Amino acid sequence: MASVSESIDDVAKLLDRKANVKCDEGKHKFVLKTPKGTRDYNPKQMAIRERVFNTIISSFKRHGAETIDTPVFELKETLTGKYGEDSKLIYDLKDQGGELLSLRYDLTVPFARYLAMNKITNIKRYHIAKVYRRDNPAMTKGRYREFYQCDFDIAGQYDAMIPDAECLKIVHEILSELQLGDFLIKVNDRRILDGMFAVCGVPDNKFRTICSSVDKLDKTPWQDVKNEMVGEKGLPSEVADRIGEYVQMNGGLELIEQLLQDPLLSQNKFSLEGLNDMKLLFEYLALFGVTSQISFDLSLARGLDYYTGVIYEAVLLQDHKETQAQQKDNSEETLSVGSVAGGGRYDGLVGMFDPKGRKVPCVGVSIGIERIFSIMEQKAEASDEKIRTTETQVLVAAAQKKLLEERLKLISELWNAGVKAEMLYKKNPKLLNQLQYCEETGIPLVAIIGEQELKDGVVKLRVVATREEVNISRQDLVEEIKRRTPSVC
Amino acid sequence: MASVSESIDDVAKLLDRKANVKCDEGKHKFVLKTPKGTRDYNPKQMAIRERVFNTIISSFKRHGAETIDTPVFELKETLTGKYGEDSKLIYDLKDQGGELLSLRYDLTVPFARYLAMNKITNIKRYHIAKVYRRDNPAMTKGRYREFYQCDFDIAGQYDAMIPDAECLKIVHEILSELQLGDFLIKVNDRRILDGMFAVCGVPDNKFRTICSSVDKLDKTPWQDVKNEMVGEKGLPSEVADRIGEYVQMNGGLELIEQLLQDPLLSQNKFSLEGLNDMKLLFEYLALFGVTSQISFDLSLARGLDYYTGVIYEAVLLQDHKETQAQQKDNSEETLSVGSVAGGGRYDGLVGMFDPKGRKVPCVGVSIGIERIFSIMEQKAEASDEKIRTTETQVLVAAAQKKLLEERLKLISELWNAGVKAEMLYKKNPKLLNQLQYCEETGIPLVAIIGEQELKDGVVKLRVVATREEVNISRQDLVEEIKRRTPSVC
Repeated sequence: MASVSESIDDVAKLLDRKANVKCDEGKHKFVLKTPKGTRDYNPKQMAIRERVFNTIISSFKRHGAETIDTPVFELKETLTGKYGEDSKLIYDLKDQGGELLSLRYDLTVPFARYLAMNKITNIKRYHIAKVYRRDNPAMTKGRYREFYQCDFDIAGQYDAMIPDAECLKIVHEILSELQLGDFLIKVNDRRILDGMFAVCGVPDNKFRTICSSVDKLDKTPWQDVKNEMVGEKGLPSEVADRIGEYVQMNGGLELIEQLLQDPLLSQNKFSLEGLNDMKLLFEYLALFGVTSQISFDLSLARGLDYYTGVIYEAVLLQDHKETQAQQKDNSEETLSVGSVAGGGRYDGLVGMFDPKGRKVPCVGVSIGIERIFSIMEQKAEASDEKIRTTETQVLVAAAQKKLLEERLKLISELWNAGVKAEMLYKKNPKLLNQLQYCEETGIPLVAIIGEQELKDGVVKLRVVATREEVNISRQDLVEEIKRRTPSVC
Repeated sequence: MASVSESIDDVAKLLDRKANVKCDEGKHKFVLKTPKGTRDYNPKQMAIRERVFNTIISSFKRHGAETIDTPVFELKETLTGKYGEDSKLIYDLKDQGGELLSLRYDLTVPFARYLAMNKITNIKRYHIAKVYRRDNPAMTKGRYREFYQCDFDIAGQYDAMIPDAECLKIVHEILSELQLGDFLIKVNDRRILDGMFAVCGVPDNKFRTICSSVDKLDKTPWQDVKNEMVGEKGLPSEVADRIGEYVQMNGGLELIEQLLQDPLLSQNKFSLEGLNDMKLLFEYLALFGVTSQISFDLSLARGLDYYTGVIYEAVLLQDHKETQAQQKDNSEETLSVGSVAGGGRYDGLVGMFDPKGRKVPCVGVSIGIERIFSIMEQKAEASDEKIRTTETQVLVAAAQKKLLEERLKLISELWNAGVKAEMLYKKNPKLLNQLQYCEETGIPLVAIIGEQELKDGVVKLRVVATREEVNISRQDLVEEIKRRTPSVC
């Protein structure tokens, strides 16, 4: 085979050289890795991932959502002008002729494009897919350049705050069901922020950039944020101080009532609208019984340009006591997981895609699954729980040599009957090796055939955990296997 | 709101202009579309897609496969030199600083990279994900630039043809279960092809390019393929004629036996090895009971460089009588669906990534799901089957006005009990509109509350299909809903 494969290699090399004239000058060492900020999922991680997805999808379906999918890339211009200062993080594709393309940055803009393109005015949909950001990765904290978002959105012209409240209920359900410990959902409203900026004296054209500064308050102390506002962004110091007073407020209904009496905010049309809706939202959330984990927080800003009304963000509180206790080395990393969900209302985004600017009001939430994975992975590692990565019910094994054909016949019968079955890919495997394979992979049963069993028309069924063995007639085997492995059927 | 959103727009526009100095010279009309060769999936299509995925994943799991995931892009050099003439179809990312990246072209090369990187020598895994090819799209035939592959591969040093036979069994299972009509799985072996080229007199350095020509035989008549070999690729006419005789052969065990007696092929080391393994493969396939839909076909070549042994491809036979009869307009498109699965053995690919060249023999299969979707979609359209896109069990409705709070309380109870429930996002929806919503979306039950029901502590449960109504006490409601909607629980 040597000469043939060498000639294959030669052709391949020539093609490479042709394709990479510039890159290939001088030899370079091949690096065996995934791209920066990305990772593979091994089978154990996939098992955890599927468990998390199932919880999330169950909740989305419980609330009557359909699902859609969109391409991983969009026309570059579809993404342009939607993300404010974060646009620099968009991955562009190389211009290889044809359209200019970019990888999707989130699932919200493709959703809006989808609605406008198909003239859809009412839909409740979820979408689980990967998105791409050329951000500084911090992979131990679950911050990647390629990461999943699990989005649920409600589009349509409805009565105020009813869909918004449902989105928050969903976040509450999912975070509760995932058992990630205590969490808090912070809520604010772009209109309250805008009204606040106006009454504090921020010039109109600085609203967005000052909003970006406020957005940093979850990670940065007020003094640094103020310095940015004043030093970099040219805001008068006393204006910043006025903002500073507001953004340190958080609470529930009583804070909303208080701000509705605030002599400045109550005079501003936008913040008054926002506060009235916030009051309504909290009333609905009370009926859902979830207000104890929800906080109206004036420091919450969220960076994206497209939000127009209520905004929210869920954070895990730092008391993963179990995990921390068992995690000796890098407990610092387990502490600061931060935001695991966020979203808000974006009533103008679909209109940006419609040739006539027709608006479709939308509100939605995005679950940031990677950080949740990180926690679940750490939990799984810390616990002694053994995670199976297959669902195989039975291994078809031979007790003697020269029984490959019999094993192939039996396993084919089992597969055709819908039984999940494996065998070793050896002509004459040792019985011990076959049993060991079950121990390693968690296969609960072994169907053993030998000369005697074949003569008697039976199969010896062995329970791996107890080593119990029982002869089962061939025609009862499928039923017996299904009876003994109900959990994986 | 006008002045605020205008200022938002202004900032966004400025940022755009900054980012796209070149592109934005002169106004251009915004085009509302997905990139060429890609499509969205609407909820109906997603419902069909999930059904197909479930069938495929069930089969993969039945054969004991784990699953993994890899990033959508790889280092460019990871893909370089693996795809022969098809390399020009790879999507590259723009160089925005940092690593040079390309979108994955298939799932096989990332799998091999994963094995080498993690030093894995034994694994049976499936991977379902999108891959990218800058090919000429033919979307009505299910040929896209972004498309799903469903891959199953067995890596490891095993006894000959046992894993290879299982891969073919899986293709057979999946195509049978999807009920796509008659199909044929063509099988060949790279070693038989290489031996055939050698004994026909093809020079060593032309094996790959002649192999590419042979690969076109499923779509192109022999005379055109011959012209390419002779005219473009400089093969002597008599050499091409000798190839022509072989590549028109196909059959089963008897053809294998015949070729094992062929005076030329039997003298070549590679083709002899290939033919002996092919015989073994057919013996195993007979034990699996699937040989009637499998044909040893000497014209099957498959374009990819990395195959080293057995190769196969499944095609649907052109007798979708049902679909054709019901499909009046474009019956031509329904006819030529072609290949829906393919794969083979690639024993050298992992070694190309290993610093020491350590080989991990692999064999696998890839199900080409988009073409299957196209058929299933056409079938669904042709039939009158109504596909539900949600699983909602019950709509919470009010018979009178001013019951929003009561609806919110009741639906919250249902969600918390795991019931899939919806309500209209209106303060005071009309009962008729609520019932209509159920008709349109297929929700089977309505839980109606009115003043009287609230007083009596009951809910009126209405069966949409029969219009039957029955009062259920509040504490029995969850159980009653679950009892009446077992299929969606």
